[in-house]
Amino acid sequence: MDLLTRTLEKIKPLDKDAMAQAQKRQDDLTKPAGSLGRLEEVSIQVAGIQRKAKPEIKNKAMITMAADHGVVDEKIGNWPREVTAQMVENFLNGGAGINVLARQAGARIVFVDMGVASDLKPNKQLIVKKVGYGTKNMCQGPVMTGEQAVQAIEAGIEIVIGEANKGLDIVGTGDMGIGNTTASSAVFAVLSGKTVEEVTGRGTGLNDEQLNHKIDVIKRALKLNKPNPTRPLEVLAKVGGFEIGGLAGVMLGAAAQHIPVVIDGFISGAAALVATALSPQLKDYIIAAHCSAEAGHAAMLKSMGLKPLLNLEMRLGEGTGAALGIIIAEAAVRTLNEMATFAEAGVSEGE
Amino acid sequence: MDLLTRTLEKIKPLDKDAMAQAQKRQDDLTKPAGSLGRLEEVSIQVAGIQRKAKPEIKNKAMITMAADHGVVDEKIGNWPREVTAQMVENFLNGGAGINVLARQAGARIVFVDMGVASDLKPNKQLIVKKVGYGTKNMCQGPVMTGEQAVQAIEAGIEIVIGEANKGLDIVGTGDMGIGNTTASSAVFAVLSGKTVEEVTGRGTGLNDEQLNHKIDVIKRALKLNKPNPTRPLEVLAKVGGFEIGGLAGVMLGAAAQHIPVVIDGFISGAAALVATALSPQLKDYIIAAHCSAEAGHAAMLKSMGLKPLLNLEMRLGEGTGAALGIIIAEAAVRTLNEMATFAEAGVSEGE
Repeated sequence: MDLLTRTLEKIKPLDKDAMAQAQKRQDDLTKPAGSLGRLEEVSIQVAGIQRKAKPEIKNKAMITMAADHGVVDEKIGNWPREVTAQMVENFLNGGAGINVLARQAGARIVFVDMGVASDLKPNKQLIVKKVGYGTKNMCQGPVMTGEQAVQAIEAGIEIVIGEANKGLDIVGTGDMGIGNTTASSAVFAVLSGKTVEEVTGRGTGLNDEQLNHKIDVIKRALKLNKPNPTRPLEVLAKVGGFEIGGLAGVMLGAAAQHIPVVIDGFISGAAALVATALSPQLKDYIIAAHCSAEAGHAAMLKSMGLKPLLNLEMRLGEGTGAALGIIIAEAAVRTLNEMATFAEAGVSEGE
Repeated sequence: MDLLTRTLEKIKPLDKDAMAQAQKRQDDLTKPAGSLGRLEEVSIQVAGIQRKAKPEIKNKAMITMAADHGVVDEKIGNWPREVTAQMVENFLNGGAGINVLARQAGARIVFVDMGVASDLKPNKQLIVKKVGYGTKNMCQGPVMTGEQAVQAIEAGIEIVIGEANKGLDIVGTGDMGIGNTTASSAVFAVLSGKTVEEVTGRGTGLNDEQLNHKIDVIKRALKLNKPNPTRPLEVLAKVGGFEIGGLAGVMLGAAAQHIPVVIDGFISGAAALVATALSPQLKDYIIAAHCSAEAGHAAMLKSMGLKPLLNLEMRLGEGTGAALGIIIAEAAVRTLNEMATFAEAGVSEGE
C-alpha cells in the first residue's frame, strides 16, 4: 500500500506556466489561431503534464496487460477462456493488431501477464506480474482480495516506473482478457450509479439473448457483492480484474512521473474510473484515444469529463485505439514545436 | 479537353474481386470480425481501388495547390491577399502545418502554383501551373473562362500522372488561397441547391457581421453569374478557383490510375463536388480525411455520401487533415496485410 500511497501523493496539478507558454506559441504559429483544433488542445495539455513549454514525444510505449476472468464460467461471451493466453502468444509473435499499430506509431510494447489462467512461455517482451490464475467468478463472491487489488495496482505502477527509467515521453494502455468487458461494465455501473443496462455492451459480438444474459450476470454479481461506490479499491476487488487494476496503476504511475497517458477503450476506461476515483487530479494526465463501438464507452468517457480524439468504430482492445491516439498526440506536439511563427516566416497576420 | 475526356473514360468501378478477398482476409485475422471498424472499411476500399487483395501504401504524396481569388476585393476575410504567396514561401521553407504533418505521415509534398497573384521564386519543390494571376472577382462576372477551367483541371491531372510515374500508392489533397472558402461555398451552394446561408462558414475566423457580408457577396455573385448546376465546368468557371479546378483534376487523375485520394477539408470538398459531378464513379476512390470545423463541411461530405475518418475540429487547410487521413489509411492497410490469421497464430475462433 506504501507505493500506491506515495504515488497518489505525487500527482500534482498541471504546470500552468508551461501551458500558458505553449498557448502563446500556438497563437504565434503560421495559421489562424485555433485552426488546429484538438491538436492545439492536446499539445497544451502535454506541455502542462511534462512541465515543458515545448514538450517532447520521442520515447513512446504501449503497455498491454492480460488477465483471465472467473465470470467466464457464466458463459457471458462467445470466446473460450484459453484465447487470452493464445492471444498473448500472438502478441509475442508480432501478429496482433496492437503489434501492427504500435509499430506504425513507433512505440515499443510491453506485454504484462497480470493474471492469465495458465503459465505462459517466458519471453523477453513479457513481464510476469501474475496476481493469480484468473480472477474468481463475481457471481460467487469478490473476484479478488483487497490485498490482490492493491498488488495489481502497484504492479502497474512498478511497470511504468521501469519504463520511465528507460525514457518515456508518452504511454498508451491496452488490455487482453476474455470476459473483461463484463468486469468493466460492472465497475462502471457501480462507480457511475448508472443502470447495468446502460453500461453493458455486446463485447466481441453478442446477440440480444446473450446480451440480456450478460446483464443478468452483472446484476446478480452486484446484488451479491454490494460494492461500496465510494471505495474504488473495494469495487476493483469485488467485480474488477487483475488487468483493470494493473492499468489503473499504469495511469497513476505515469501521472506521478509527469507522463501523459493515452487510454484505449472500454477496459482502459474502467481502469481510469478506478484510478480517477483514487486521484481526481489524474484526469488531467489522461488523453482519451478514441470512442469505441462498445455501448457505454461514450458515457464512460463523458462521466470522467474526457473527450475522445478518434471515433473509428473500433472495439478490438489490446491498445489498438491508444496506438492511434499516440500518433495524434505526436502530431499535436510536432506542430507546436516544428511550425514556424509569423515573425520567423515573414507572413502577415490576420486582423 | 482531350486529357480530361480520356481521364473521365478511365475511371472504372472498383475491383469487386480484390475487395471480396480483402474482406475474407479481414474476417480471418486474429480479432473479432469487424472490430477494427472504419479501418477495415478503408482497407477494403483501398483493395478495390488498387485492384489488389493486399494493397500497398508505401509511396505517399500530398499535393497542395495555391491560388488567389478576385473576390478578396469584396473584403470577405481578415487576411490580406499577399498571405497566399507568403504562405507558399513558408511551405517551401518547411515551416507550415502541412510540412510537419506530411513529414510525420512519411509523405512527400508537391506544392503547385495554380494561380497565385504574384510570381513566386523558383524552387524545386514548387510546380508552376499558373492559369492566371488570381481569379477575377465573382461579383463582377465569371472568375475565369471556360478554357481556363479545363486548363486548371488538366493541370491537376498532369501533376498526378507525373507523381504516379515516380511511384504513388496514395495521394492527399490540400489548398492555400486567401478567399477560397468563399469560392468553395459558392460552388457548394450551386451544386447542392442549398441556401447560401447553409453552406457558408467563418473561414479563418469571421465575426457575425463579416459572415453576413460574406453571405451577401456570394448571393450577389450567384445572382449575377447564374451558373447552371448541371454543368460543373461552368460552375467552376463562374464562381470557383484555379486551385479548386486543379484539385478536381488531381482527384480524377488519381482515380483514373487506381490511386486512392484522401481529401482534406472544405476547399478539397468543393473540388470533389466538381469532380464527382463530372464522374460520379470517382466517389468510390475518395477517402474523406476529416470533418473540418468550417460550417457546411459536414453537409458537403454527406451530399457526396462520404463519411469522414477524423473529427479533430481542424480548419487550417493546406492538406493538414489529409496528411492525418493518410496515416489512418496506412494503419488500415497495414493491419490488413500484417496481422496474423487465426490459423497462422493458432488462436481459437469465437462462435
